[in-house]
Amino acid sequence: MGNQKFGAGIWHFATYVDRYATDGYGPPRTLIEMIDLAGQVDDLSVVDINFPFADPALSLDAIDKALDRNGLSVIGITPEIYTRRFAKGAFTNPDAGIRRLANEMCNEAADVVRHFGAKYVKLWPGQDGWDYPFQVDHGSLWKASMDGVGELAEQNPDLQFVIEYKPREPRVHMSFDSVSRTLLGIEKIGLPNVGILLDFGHSLYGGESPADAAQLAIDHGRLFGMDVNDNFRSWDDDLIAGSVHPIELFEFFYTLRKNNWEGVWQLDQFPFREDSVAAANAAIDFLKGVERALDKLDFEAMREAQLRHDAVTALGLARQALFSSF
Amino acid sequence: MGNQKFGAGIWHFATYVDRYATDGYGPPRTLIEMIDLAGQVDDLSVVDINFPFADPALSLDAIDKALDRNGLSVIGITPEIYTRRFAKGAFTNPDAGIRRLANEMCNEAADVVRHFGAKYVKLWPGQDGWDYPFQVDHGSLWKASMDGVGELAEQNPDLQFVIEYKPREPRVHMSFDSVSRTLLGIEKIGLPNVGILLDFGHSLYGGESPADAAQLAIDHGRLFGMDVNDNFRSWDDDLIAGSVHPIELFEFFYTLRKNNWEGVWQLDQFPFREDSVAAANAAIDFLKGVERALDKLDFEAMREAQLRHDAVTALGLARQALFSSF
Amino acid sequence: MGNQKFGAGIWHFATYVDRYATDGYGPPRTLIEMIDLAGQVDDLSVVDINFPFADPALSLDAIDKALDRNGLSVIGITPEIYTRRFAKGAFTNPDAGIRRLANEMCNEAADVVRHFGAKYVKLWPGQDGWDYPFQVDHGSLWKASMDGVGELAEQNPDLQFVIEYKPREPRVHMSFDSVSRTLLGIEKIGLPNVGILLDFGHSLYGGESPADAAQLAIDHGRLFGMDVNDNFRSWDDDLIAGSVHPIELFEFFYTLRKNNWEGVWQLDQFPFREDSVAAANAAIDFLKGVERALDKLDFEAMREAQLRHDAVTALGLARQALFSSF
Amino acid sequence: MGNQKFGAGIWHFATYVDRYATDGYGPPRTLIEMIDLAGQVDDLSVVDINFPFADPALSLDAIDKALDRNGLSVIGITPEIYTRRFAKGAFTNPDAGIRRLANEMCNEAADVVRHFGAKYVKLWPGQDGWDYPFQVDHGSLWKASMDGVGELAEQNPDLQFVIEYKPREPRVHMSFDSVSRTLLGIEKIGLPNVGILLDFGHSLYGGESPADAAQLAIDHGRLFGMDVNDNFRSWDDDLIAGSVHPIELFEFFYTLRKNNWEGVWQLDQFPFREDSVAAANAAIDFLKGVERALDKLDFEAMREAQLRHDAVTALGLARQALFSSF
Repeated sequence: MGNQKFGAGIWHFATYVDRYATDGYGPPRTLIEMIDLAGQVDDLSVVDINFPFADPALSLDAIDKALDRNGLSVIGITPEIYTRRFAKGAFTNPDAGIRRLANEMCNEAADVVRHFGAKYVKLWPGQDGWDYPFQVDHGSLWKASMDGVGELAEQNPDLQFVIEYKPREPRVHMSFDSVSRTLLGIEKIGLPNVGILLDFGHSLYGGESPADAAQLAIDHGRLFGMDVNDNFRSWDDDLIAGSVHPIELFEFFYTLRKNNWEGVWQLDQFPFREDSVAAANAAIDFLKGVERALDKLDFEAMREAQLRHDAVTALGLARQALFSSF
Repeated sequence: MGNQKFGAGIWHFATYVDRYATDGYGPPRTLIEMIDLAGQVDDLSVVDINFPFADPALSLDAIDKALDRNGLSVIGITPEIYTRRFAKGAFTNPDAGIRRLANEMCNEAADVVRHFGAKYVKLWPGQDGWDYPFQVDHGSLWKASMDGVGELAEQNPDLQFVIEYKPREPRVHMSFDSVSRTLLGIEKIGLPNVGILLDFGHSLYGGESPADAAQLAIDHGRLFGMDVNDNFRSWDDDLIAGSVHPIELFEFFYTLRKNNWEGVWQLDQFPFREDSVAAANAAIDFLKGVERALDKLDFEAMREAQLRHDAVTALGLARQALFSSF
Repeated sequence: MGNQKFGAGIWHFATYVDRYATDGYGPPRTLIEMIDLAGQVDDLSVVDINFPFADPALSLDAIDKALDRNGLSVIGITPEIYTRRFAKGAFTNPDAGIRRLANEMCNEAADVVRHFGAKYVKLWPGQDGWDYPFQVDHGSLWKASMDGVGELAEQNPDLQFVIEYKPREPRVHMSFDSVSRTLLGIEKIGLPNVGILLDFGHSLYGGESPADAAQLAIDHGRLFGMDVNDNFRSWDDDLIAGSVHPIELFEFFYTLRKNNWEGVWQLDQFPFREDSVAAANAAIDFLKGVERALDKLDFEAMREAQLRHDAVTALGLARQALFSSF
Repeated sequence: MGNQKFGAGIWHFATYVDRYATDGYGPPRTLIEMIDLAGQVDDLSVVDINFPFADPALSLDAIDKALDRNGLSVIGITPEIYTRRFAKGAFTNPDAGIRRLANEMCNEAADVVRHFGAKYVKLWPGQDGWDYPFQVDHGSLWKASMDGVGELAEQNPDLQFVIEYKPREPRVHMSFDSVSRTLLGIEKIGLPNVGILLDFGHSLYGGESPADAAQLAIDHGRLFGMDVNDNFRSWDDDLIAGSVHPIELFEFFYTLRKNNWEGVWQLDQFPFREDSVAAANAAIDFLKGVERALDKLDFEAMREAQLRHDAVTALGLARQALFSSF
């Protein structure tokens, strides 16, 4: 117990804007301030950092120092291929010049990954997709989605590129929308260094069973990372992990353990109106309970119940292990 | 034909930010620039304006002049009771001081309504609600929602207050979430100057039939205003009206006509990635087709088909009238 | 502890058909067989029985005996106003003769309620609504929905009539679709003996917070009954209570306790592929844990957290009380 | 014009039961009666027939005669691998004996395909999936899903096997749930005679763009068949095609035409409460309008608008072509 490493997207410690609260849910924070907040969380080891940094004058050295004093290291870098210039797409933008910019930004992000000794460049192409019927040629759009990722993976064979799929937002429909679509694309790309970062909430609100999605990605050898949060199944609410769907979250981690999948348990939460340190602590407390529950769960009895598709027995085993760990 | 007046929320001509494109989908626009864009739309007569104005130095006189030169008048004022300070609610904020601020801002908005000779203060309490299970005492929250509106209506008996209900966003659940809930609240408030502004898209994605919602509000004597747009039934996409659900949009306007409801047909669209003038023209072109179709539709034959609940005949009548008007 | 009474719709112990497994998910069961199965559940006191009985020759006396030997009593009777003849509606059927039949069947059900000394006639008008845009005149349909219920309540002032609202199924849209719509109708009907039977799952998949819906019905003095189950928020799956949404189920019961609402905790589950006795036991076991958790929960601390809309603290209190009760 | 062939699942002409109207939405019909109804539709050429036939005494010869006198031929056979004995799955049933039965029934269906000179065996494994978290081992379930189909395709290399994916119903989650998942499975199976039958409504309510789904299946060389209907995006309502989403239906057929995909346009409607012949005629009338609209649409202008992702222009072109064809 207590062996599990926890991480978070550094944006967990930012403040946010949306289309209504255009003045933001709080005063803007610098990356250094966010790192110092992350350091206040009880048991956080790694962070995922957006690139480019909001303050262009900020040096890697200054970030290194901030990370060091907070006992944090970097697991991945998320290039911001979803800001104004990419409003109509990064890899799929109708303008070849913008597609080039996206490639360049991701290559720069790759260098930052190398600097930090991190694991991956995380690609979340949130503006790649469409809004309206008839807006795009679907064949070309999908091809461009795959080509954009494939080109990066070829240019940087020493690094991993992880795709974080999501059904929608900000585009009404994203091209990498589901675990299956993303795996289909990855198989087509055909490179070993492209994988999936599975966001529990994206899977849940996309109508998947996150446990099933994780198993599928594992069976294809492509589950390179994961993060958790919660929502009400109709939108990417990025709520505190375990607050709404504790049982499916437990099944998700059960699936990882069953497959001996080892990696950081990351948070992708947006605490718009909550204290961000408290929200992270609440989630990690819950995840530690999940870890205890996995140690306690009778895997053999579960296996036997599942062999019979016996939901009553399986749920009883799961609930008892989970709930009694709190 | 050509008698129908069209309007739009002035934000139709703004640029937008969201939680990802924090640098906005375009350079910021001043209110005067928005009004000048609205003036370029082929057939727009009225606008709904947010308050307070982004530029506090902007005078009412300057706005009057901009409206005048663009042939526009004001139908309503929308106080921004959903910005940072109201992040945890306006009428339902746990802090009484913030609730007071919301009341004051709406009272100032009422004065602006009077200045423009407009019709109503539009209340869209987008931050009033909750995000998590157990977060609020539901009885108190709902009471505060009603009290906040009731106090305003009592303070300003010469004006209308219209509530624009919506299921969610930015809160995970809004307290005025549906036509029925809002009517229930309005009946409890018990004042003649409180009504509903029915947003077609909010109704659609809330699982209502917008036509049924309109009929219900009309039967309660509370349909004070309306606006249209479109979406994919799972989120408030604010797409161009008629782009996805032309038939239900037609049924909505059929219901208004059948009840002799007369008022402005307004747009509430957010053209994130489209030219805002082109998006408004496209919608109004469609609405003019709807107007022609209403003139052409055989209301008596429709009435007879509906008496029998005869969907095949009713849909045939509706489609033929609508489609052949283009 | 152990004071709470549990109940179930007798259909919990039936076998089912659907549009694919037209030969049913098991051999048909008689009402007597269902009662004998209900009697095998560890802690079940009351049942809700459909009427008319599948076997027209079955006597009330035979049912009494079966109930007696199983230690069961009847809480309500559910007239089957949703079978073939009512396919186009019971209270809203376009044919006045069918509307009359519906009224007569419900009046007969009222007599059966009296025979059993039960509490209410449960109205679930699942065929009252519409499928297509333009199919019905919404004003007339809603009026007929209210008139049908009102007439029954007037004819039987000694009994309660409870409406079990539901968003849809089998109609694509039901007229009594939500807690607010139903309360709006009940207020219009204006009789003391009409109330709501709140089905947790219907509320959940209709996009409501069941806790909020319960509070609203209580505040209107109309929460006459309730039942629970679970689903994935997009359909009335009628799964085992607590299997997917334990936290919102706990909030629902917390709301009842907070308001001193006392009544039977009923099950409305459809165990298509599960052993029905095991499914009932699993649910009641969970509900007993909920009962223990309510005894353990610090209501005053919860009240204070909710006063501040403090989700992190409130959820922490709730989870700890609930989970540690297992 | 007028070249397009139309077809229907023969169940379009059946009556239905569901879990409420257990006495059915009408008196049962024999297969011969259904065929004779299908023959009354104005322009229907082919049907898809369920197997085994409800009446085991019914001879293939009698069916041939009924088809002949109605000018109909058979496009495919749908084995009923979703009735009582398959309640816990056909290809994924925990009982190997039941899995064997499913294989045998499908092999018999293959012989019937050969008898009729039809094109494919249609596999719709509606009971293959799960209902509850923790109920199944997702890796094994998915493997069994693929193995079941692969075995059949190997046993019958002379025939096509088409998988009709669907998100859910009757299982809460089906294993072949989406176009991408199904293609992923088909690629793994690796046989040339396995493809997809794309149901427009399943795609729509699964959150896909049916046009995008069609393009993807075509690009993988696996679009073997299709059928249409409509719904409200949250359930498989099987409403009359074009009644709710005419624009996306048009985009779907536009995608087929653009790719020179040629095949029968089939109906998969369930007219629970409508006259089945009238419902089929209404749909085919609409589809003929779609065909005229495709002849009229400026494909080159559409291509150019899509190159720019210009939704306003593209939608304008589409609407004008479609609506003016009625």
